[in-house]
Amino acid sequence: MSPIRIGFIGLSGQGWASTMLAPPLLEEPLSSQYQLTAVSTSNSASAEATAAKYASLLGTPVKPYHGSPEHIVSDPNVDLVAVSVKVTHHFENAMKVIDGGKDLFLEWPAGNGLKETSALASAAKEKGVRTIVGLQGRMDPVFKKVKAIIDSGEIGRILSTSLTARAFPGIRMWGPYVSSATRIYGVNSNGGTLLDIGGGHLLDMLTYILGPVASVSATLSNQHPVAEVVDENGKPTGETIEQDAATQVAVSGVLTNGAVMSVHVRGGMETKADGKAGTPLLWIIDGEKGSIRIESDDPKASAVSFMTPRLYVNGEEIKVEGNGFANARRAWEAYVKGDGYADLEAALKTKTLIDAIKRSGKEGRRINL
Amino acid sequence: MSPIRIGFIGLSGQGWASTMLAPPLLEEPLSSQYQLTAVSTSNSASAEATAAKYASLLGTPVKPYHGSPEHIVSDPNVDLVAVSVKVTHHFENAMKVIDGGKDLFLEWPAGNGLKETSALASAAKEKGVRTIVGLQGRMDPVFKKVKAIIDSGEIGRILSTSLTARAFPGIRMWGPYVSSATRIYGVNSNGGTLLDIGGGHLLDMLTYILGPVASVSATLSNQHPVAEVVDENGKPTGETIEQDAATQVAVSGVLTNGAVMSVHVRGGMETKADGKAGTPLLWIIDGEKGSIRIESDDPKASAVSFMTPRLYVNGEEIKVEGNGFANARRAWEAYVKGDGYADLEAALKTKTLIDAIKRSGKEGRRINL
Repeated sequence: MSPIRIGFIGLSGQGWASTMLAPPLLEEPLSSQYQLTAVSTSNSASAEATAAKYASLLGTPVKPYHGSPEHIVSDPNVDLVAVSVKVTHHFENAMKVIDGGKDLFLEWPAGNGLKETSALASAAKEKGVRTIVGLQGRMDPVFKKVKAIIDSGEIGRILSTSLTARAFPGIRMWGPYVSSATRIYGVNSNGGTLLDIGGGHLLDMLTYILGPVASVSATLSNQHPVAEVVDENGKPTGETIEQDAATQVAVSGVLTNGAVMSVHVRGGMETKADGKAGTPLLWIIDGEKGSIRIESDDPKASAVSFMTPRLYVNGEEIKVEGNGFANARRAWEAYVKGDGYADLEAALKTKTLIDAIKRSGKEGRRINL
Repeated sequence: MSPIRIGFIGLSGQGWASTMLAPPLLEEPLSSQYQLTAVSTSNSASAEATAAKYASLLGTPVKPYHGSPEHIVSDPNVDLVAVSVKVTHHFENAMKVIDGGKDLFLEWPAGNGLKETSALASAAKEKGVRTIVGLQGRMDPVFKKVKAIIDSGEIGRILSTSLTARAFPGIRMWGPYVSSATRIYGVNSNGGTLLDIGGGHLLDMLTYILGPVASVSATLSNQHPVAEVVDENGKPTGETIEQDAATQVAVSGVLTNGAVMSVHVRGGMETKADGKAGTPLLWIIDGEKGSIRIESDDPKASAVSFMTPRLYVNGEEIKVEGNGFANARRAWEAYVKGDGYADLEAALKTKTLIDAIKRSGKEGRRINL
């Protein structure tokens, strides 16, 4: 099979795409299965620099584009376009990829809200393009193991699940302090709130493993309506900005399998407590015949797309080979194989759940899905 | 000060009163502050036996009564009547104590539901009798320490709290298996459900420490509509009974101080997982300046009225002198001092919260308190 020729919108010298998404493509086995042929960034200088860097690393040409996504989308040497830009620009870029008939990688949180994501999923279906979305947590060996245990019936009928997670202070999003780079995420209309991003990864994981949610009752609260802007060293610049997105999301509900769910995603914290004391991730799944406990003391543990927690089944720790930093590689591999990765249809399900949680919090009532 | 003369309704050869409530009264310092002068049970034989047993232990007379509570209530040698019977008989006994002008100890869950508890609290206030309710968890040295830490401002403004607890399988209540003694607790109308009893102790603790709840959105589910009756060895008798009470209670909400709350009380489990794997108690309190984690791996840990968990503040374990088995003694001592124990007014607040949770679950909407 000839390699999938991939073009990146938003791959630059630093940031998520350059540290997490692109590197696995440069190594075997992916370096035989994918070929980076083009990049597109916001300005010509960064495009030239990035293209030159990857051309040098790969020993094959990488075409630089900038400005409009049309150019990279119409490049005949590109099969799949990866979009990894600010969420506020996801829709315009992703829709042009689909319209151009190219396959699409779209970073989570997919569209800005349910409506955009729904439009993208419909367009992709209509156009017949393949999609993959940056929900790599389901590729994690621990979460795969948890799913296998549950699917096997080993712990019996699932009675309940309880998950609490905490955005790590260092991320400077959704909290009392924000950096210039992250200042957009505290505003609901930008589509990258704590619930959209961190909550989305967690809920995608939970529903991937336990199945769909039937109803939710939610409490959302914005405890930091004014955030201080900090510089790259974390020092306040003196500027403040207004935020309206929830910094705390607590949800109860019922899954379609009858299990009761409790999820609490805690943001906005800059406390002294890190690690275990801060309880960055604790996820319990109780079945009639056994209990699973998933836990991590790593401050970044709630980032389940690349962090691997510890797994306990009925009190025994289960060691699983591999760790979460390879989840992006695993997702690219699954895309080649054609199975097991999250696509826009999967993203749409999670966005529908997130939208229900937001509506429940706003309207103060149970929302049935 | 002359000792408080105490009479017990429901003190027999075995059960809660004989193992937890009465023993501390027989030892210093309480043996100088209280004098057990009378007991009343359902039949004359057990009354005689219990009275004789305690008279022998104390070396002072103990009067036996049986049948109606009027007799012990009108005994001039009784100042305080302790009611520790099945919750379905709490109201009739407690109201007669109040009507008789005697001070009252009433075991948790106080009345059967909010209405009875409200009537008892009003009657006690009107009659001017002192009351004490069996919510001894707030006497626990760990929970007192947590309250002191929070009241001191050490962890700053409270942002969130997340609590998950699990009824221990051995209790044979609210689950797939019930014993003859516990079969009434799976039925809502009997007032002793998982939320009423276990949930009530936990919520009383949480609000004692963090302050009142402003609103709740709840999910309640009965996952075991039919329970198997088991004998004293846990073997099924072949009989089944219907249950309508929730075996799972998950609640989100907001406290009046603005903190977001998530509480999940899990019942109905008879899994292989015990201890840490079953996560019997994990309670997180996050403040702007620090985090508290309260945790226990003991299967009975959710019984906070007599179980002492471990306490971590910003990752450091805080060792506290004393354990929960002395909580009943501490409550009796506090009653003598006149401060720090739960009374019917406190019970009424927790019953009001429980009632709001039940209504929220039933009506599928947020309930403001």
